[in-house]
Amino acid sequence: MKLSKRLNSMQESPIRKLVPIAEEAKLQGKKVYHLNIGQPDIMTPEVFLKAIRDFDEEVIKYSFSQGEPKLIESIIDYYKTYDMSFEKDEILITNGGSEALLFALIATCDAGDEVLVPEPFYTNYNGFSLPVGVKVSPITTHAENGFALPSKDEIQDLITDKTKAIMLSNPGNPTGVIYTDEEVNRIADLAIENDLYIIADEVYREFVYDDFDYTSFGNIDRVKDRVIIIDSISKRYSACGARIGSFASKNKDLVKGVLKLCQSRLCVPTLEQIGATELYKVDQSYFEDVNTEYKKRRDIVFDALNSMNGVICKKPHGAFYIIAKLPVEDAEDFVIWMLKEFSDNSETVMFAPAEGFYATEGLGKDEIRIAYILNEKDLKRSMELLEMGLKEYKNK
Amino acid sequence: MKLSKRLNSMQESPIRKLVPIAEEAKLQGKKVYHLNIGQPDIMTPEVFLKAIRDFDEEVIKYSFSQGEPKLIESIIDYYKTYDMSFEKDEILITNGGSEALLFALIATCDAGDEVLVPEPFYTNYNGFSLPVGVKVSPITTHAENGFALPSKDEIQDLITDKTKAIMLSNPGNPTGVIYTDEEVNRIADLAIENDLYIIADEVYREFVYDDFDYTSFGNIDRVKDRVIIIDSISKRYSACGARIGSFASKNKDLVKGVLKLCQSRLCVPTLEQIGATELYKVDQSYFEDVNTEYKKRRDIVFDALNSMNGVICKKPHGAFYIIAKLPVEDAEDFVIWMLKEFSDNSETVMFAPAEGFYATEGLGKDEIRIAYILNEKDLKRSMELLEMGLKEYKNK
Repeated sequence: MKLSKRLNSMQESPIRKLVPIAEEAKLQGKKVYHLNIGQPDIMTPEVFLKAIRDFDEEVIKYSFSQGEPKLIESIIDYYKTYDMSFEKDEILITNGGSEALLFALIATCDAGDEVLVPEPFYTNYNGFSLPVGVKVSPITTHAENGFALPSKDEIQDLITDKTKAIMLSNPGNPTGVIYTDEEVNRIADLAIENDLYIIADEVYREFVYDDFDYTSFGNIDRVKDRVIIIDSISKRYSACGARIGSFASKNKDLVKGVLKLCQSRLCVPTLEQIGATELYKVDQSYFEDVNTEYKKRRDIVFDALNSMNGVICKKPHGAFYIIAKLPVEDAEDFVIWMLKEFSDNSETVMFAPAEGFYATEGLGKDEIRIAYILNEKDLKRSMELLEMGLKEYKNK
Repeated sequence: MKLSKRLNSMQESPIRKLVPIAEEAKLQGKKVYHLNIGQPDIMTPEVFLKAIRDFDEEVIKYSFSQGEPKLIESIIDYYKTYDMSFEKDEILITNGGSEALLFALIATCDAGDEVLVPEPFYTNYNGFSLPVGVKVSPITTHAENGFALPSKDEIQDLITDKTKAIMLSNPGNPTGVIYTDEEVNRIADLAIENDLYIIADEVYREFVYDDFDYTSFGNIDRVKDRVIIIDSISKRYSACGARIGSFASKNKDLVKGVLKLCQSRLCVPTLEQIGATELYKVDQSYFEDVNTEYKKRRDIVFDALNSMNGVICKKPHGAFYIIAKLPVEDAEDFVIWMLKEFSDNSETVMFAPAEGFYATEGLGKDEIRIAYILNEKDLKRSMELLEMGLKEYKNK
């Protein structure tokens, strides 16, 4: 039995495909520090489970296709703290940010159309585009200059009559980059001049360090009819397993159209929406505490990388990822070797090879993505293991 | 800003699009009996919420992309009671049956391919097919003979070189039809002779009345490599708002391929999977009780319809739907009229116009789908309101 061509052409998740090798290492008695996946160890605020435990209806009924009205209100209030004003018919609740991204692609592009995406990019952008026939057209950025966007002209040259949208994460996964106000406005100008949508994946909005100025696409009035804001509680409130995301736009026709997609999958889980409603009311001080913790972690990882021979990276200002160029030819081979062959005191560390985050063939082969989502002690140990591993790998 | 052609070409859910009119009627003080949507009033077994309340981890973490291993084991055991034997790498957990259907279409069809579906069909089959470029090719069936499948030759004539799969619900939504063993084998033969997949939506497997013999596609060994079994806890355990479905196939390559789609959306909510694990262990007697209740309801509705002047329907043996031909020209107009203009003692009743369940233009215009999901008293009152409404509508 043949599978569809589109399914065959999909790559396995570069983040998840090495998991079986890690499981094997664990069976052999090794402890593996997982810096390969953005699963934070930060406690989910207790209000989430409390609200769900208090649910006492006898029937777990369908929710509204658009989402629970109380959750939508809660998100509207949250956006107000960032000077973004959304009305209740401008927000849809989705199965994680993932589904919001998928719906944004379906709504803005037909099969054969293109979406511009700065690379390296969140690898699942491929996973959403490919099944619906959308081509990801990469805007290449480089570790050496901190993954800054190329000039307006360089981006303009990539736009064809098939290009319908620019999709980008800011703060960036996997780079940790935060685009400057000028960069954000550069994209806005390009969108206006070429009649493009902007799919702004801002799920890491709170993860900004060093008092770096952050500009949301939701704050640029002149593109308000072409901006789609993707959000999620996964990282914001350390609730990755709840799968509650959202799709917001001031373009009411667009939202009304996407509601048809929401209707076809009926609704998002009722209980998680009840929990998420409370999360979006959590006090701003929660983010300050989390932020302080991640900044400390970023510094531990960055300082350690910076002191390692032949490792190249610029200090990122956001999210909780760093892309590092390693002094190896094939980072995937190195990551696998770290799991299979290396250990110190029965411990090793796991990263995501970065090649899968690039669309351009050959790029990222010597890079890894590090998710700094463990505590101080574990992160220090992880960096120690990386340094030891690099030396041993070189001499093997 | 233009929307994609595919989004524009999607119809609003015929089940959900009249909801605002119903809400308006309620604001005017009318009580509306909702027989328009398959939201049962049956209590969700308590083990579901209990298991979730007992969850006490501090972080709501990502689950596995394939699904929680314990839930998969629980489903494997459930299938054994139906003499279906699945291994743990043959089942994927999905966001409701909806996502399983979407993934099945992406995996078996490329854009431009066709899937054969007996009509009237579950309207969201359109909602899953259209965004991924798959054409639904209808096998027309008729109320007059209880929506039985046409002959093998008639179906064969509909198959082109673009046809990749036959998708059908059995027991059927919206018809309540149960295919005979001979009909199921007719589909199996056609699938083998034309190298097609069978996407078998069996979410109503337990809802079979009158000791009617039920044959699952999971029991036909000669097509085991081409059958995909779609399941869900929504109706089975009255947990529609939990959104836990599954995709099962003995074709391991297919399952491995679809796992890539699962990886791109990361996972299904952790808590609901914990609850669903317990649901699938619920004793068989639960189904017997539910079954007795639904059979009683089916009889109330069918007997009432049968006694109404000019109403045509055959007794359905499964699920909890009846399609009835009404003595009106435009059933949608009648349904809207019942909400806006009709009331008896400030009460009215709502159905789903059936036209949206057909792909062939013009069919189903005088039909409604009735979901018999309310208790005996409410159902009797609903049928009384329908009969009064039909008389008044005719004389207006």
